[in-house]
Amino acid sequence: MTAGRTRVDAKRLTDFATKALQKVGVPEEDAQITARILVVPGLRGADTHGVANLSGYIRGGICLGNINVTPKPKIFSQAPSIATMDGDRGLGFVIGHRAMMEAIKRAEKTGAGFIAVRNSTHFGAAACYAMMALERDMVGIALSNTPAGVAPPGSAKPAVGTNPIAVAVPSGKKTPFVLDMATSVVAGGKLEVARREGTSIPEGWAIDEEGKPATDPTRVLHRGGEGSLLPLGGTPKLGGYKGFGLGVLVDILCGVLSGSSAGIIWANTPGIRDNMYCHFFGALRIDSFLPVENFKKSMDEMIEAFEALPTLPGVKKIYAAGGYEAEIMKEREANGIPLRSYVVHDLQELAKELGIKYDL
Amino acid sequence: MTAGRTRVDAKRLTDFATKALQKVGVPEEDAQITARILVVPGLRGADTHGVANLSGYIRGGICLGNINVTPKPKIFSQAPSIATMDGDRGLGFVIGHRAMMEAIKRAEKTGAGFIAVRNSTHFGAAACYAMMALERDMVGIALSNTPAGVAPPGSAKPAVGTNPIAVAVPSGKKTPFVLDMATSVVAGGKLEVARREGTSIPEGWAIDEEGKPATDPTRVLHRGGEGSLLPLGGTPKLGGYKGFGLGVLVDILCGVLSGSSAGIIWANTPGIRDNMYCHFFGALRIDSFLPVENFKKSMDEMIEAFEALPTLPGVKKIYAAGGYEAEIMKEREANGIPLRSYVVHDLQELAKELGIKYDL
Repeated sequence: MTAGRTRVDAKRLTDFATKALQKVGVPEEDAQITARILVVPGLRGADTHGVANLSGYIRGGICLGNINVTPKPKIFSQAPSIATMDGDRGLGFVIGHRAMMEAIKRAEKTGAGFIAVRNSTHFGAAACYAMMALERDMVGIALSNTPAGVAPPGSAKPAVGTNPIAVAVPSGKKTPFVLDMATSVVAGGKLEVARREGTSIPEGWAIDEEGKPATDPTRVLHRGGEGSLLPLGGTPKLGGYKGFGLGVLVDILCGVLSGSSAGIIWANTPGIRDNMYCHFFGALRIDSFLPVENFKKSMDEMIEAFEALPTLPGVKKIYAAGGYEAEIMKEREANGIPLRSYVVHDLQELAKELGIKYDL
Repeated sequence: MTAGRTRVDAKRLTDFATKALQKVGVPEEDAQITARILVVPGLRGADTHGVANLSGYIRGGICLGNINVTPKPKIFSQAPSIATMDGDRGLGFVIGHRAMMEAIKRAEKTGAGFIAVRNSTHFGAAACYAMMALERDMVGIALSNTPAGVAPPGSAKPAVGTNPIAVAVPSGKKTPFVLDMATSVVAGGKLEVARREGTSIPEGWAIDEEGKPATDPTRVLHRGGEGSLLPLGGTPKLGGYKGFGLGVLVDILCGVLSGSSAGIIWANTPGIRDNMYCHFFGALRIDSFLPVENFKKSMDEMIEAFEALPTLPGVKKIYAAGGYEAEIMKEREANGIPLRSYVVHDLQELAKELGIKYDL
């Protein structure tokens, strides 16, 4: 799967991304936070959510003035466990990091903390924020809306984003449970990869403008075509309304609860797409429920029981969410993150434009 | 769909269920709570979660001593927003109702309230508890584990329950958003209906013991066969690991966080299946985030935008979750709940056994 790719050291890649971001005006600490959250998905195998998008954030976001590199986010709070945040159109990574810390701070005091964030920008991989709760022995939750690209069952018009849900839960000796899923069958990034590599996509991922199965990624609206992604579940008979319902729930908790709007309202309002990003973060203190040691022991027992399950032919092992990603991370920390050739080329061009050294 | 069924008045059905439960020792108020939560799913079209199961709760649960009709649930709390509850093996309906009230009480004070419940029994339809938050202008959350009947992608062994997730969100003029979904492709009740009616199930709902598609409902373990239900998403390529991940998340929040165990541990421990039920309830105060009027207006706008979407041929209207159920409820409140003949027969037999009048 990673043959023909260039292996790049995670630490050097983080330094490179930090320098690139500083070069366009992002303050050092914010650039470091952003670079880290950009590189971790690549370590965990989520290649579509990492540095492949760095030039997009810089060229399309920061340089065109769609992202504010020196935001002054405001926090409003009426209750000890809850707050809303206006992200002042800052980098989603920086705003997300600050908001998740705020949720954790509140959970420390009351057991639970929840923050809805409006007026932010794309924040990368949701898992990175949920995982901030792990070392604090909390359950972490991170959701984000995205532009409408998914059609509800019964329509061929995109009405909700791929709206990811991430939840991270600590364990003891075993790898923590880390679920990070688009509420569509696949995230838009998988179509972007297929488009760039000129391959078709499997039936069941997307439909064309007439509601028929689409296997040509260029025809799907989310990246410029006229089709739509399908919600998790796919057809109504196989539960597509559940994926759609989860997507709408994310829109409610991120967009509506933060005082912004649901994705479908943004989709119906042309020209203001770039600062529609909203997020929702949560933290639950485990020791408010039960002693942390008991919890972790019970998590380990569960994960071990999954790993001991009999498998079907061709399947090595059953993983709880995050288990497979942790194995990839171990290998990539040792051997480097494999970058596709167009990503390498893109980063080299970016280095030239910004006048920084490409030393990966 | 409801041809050949007997229409029964919801109020009379509630009174009948209340009397039946009192007859086997359930105190009056608890019997009323239970009867109401048993009848509402029938009104909303979720026929598999209603009075069809009344005789099961009474004969298999209460009369065999598996359900404690006079439980003394205990609440433990270390933090203002959080508590755990030991349900003392009470009726899931009664324990669930009390726990959700406790979550709401805590949300009133801090903005957020979360309760994990162990040692309970089956609580019917999760939506009924989440919906308790609606009239209090809160977001309501209700989850429950169920016995393992769903296989993870890559295995043919059931390892997680159908583990429902319900979330209810208030709106203004429009119908509230009410999502209530099994994390499997379908809930076990749909296979039970097919089994009783002697029909096959669609490919994609379940697999046999070799991992091959199963269309004979009697072959699926959840109700006595040797197969498994599939997680939402189905195959790995179409996101089955996401449905599995959501199912495991429910097991963690209900079973592990309450101090009980994940479903797979119960599945590996024969003979103690009946009191493995655990739940998780949450409430978020909307006015801790933003003014309730603004929120409700924005919810209405979103729901109206979904309803205005163009539809594919044969589809009348796109609904947000809960919209279709609310229309069914209106019709059934006027014309009665349609019961299948085997349910009518079952209730008549139950009336005879208990010495109460069957007056539906």
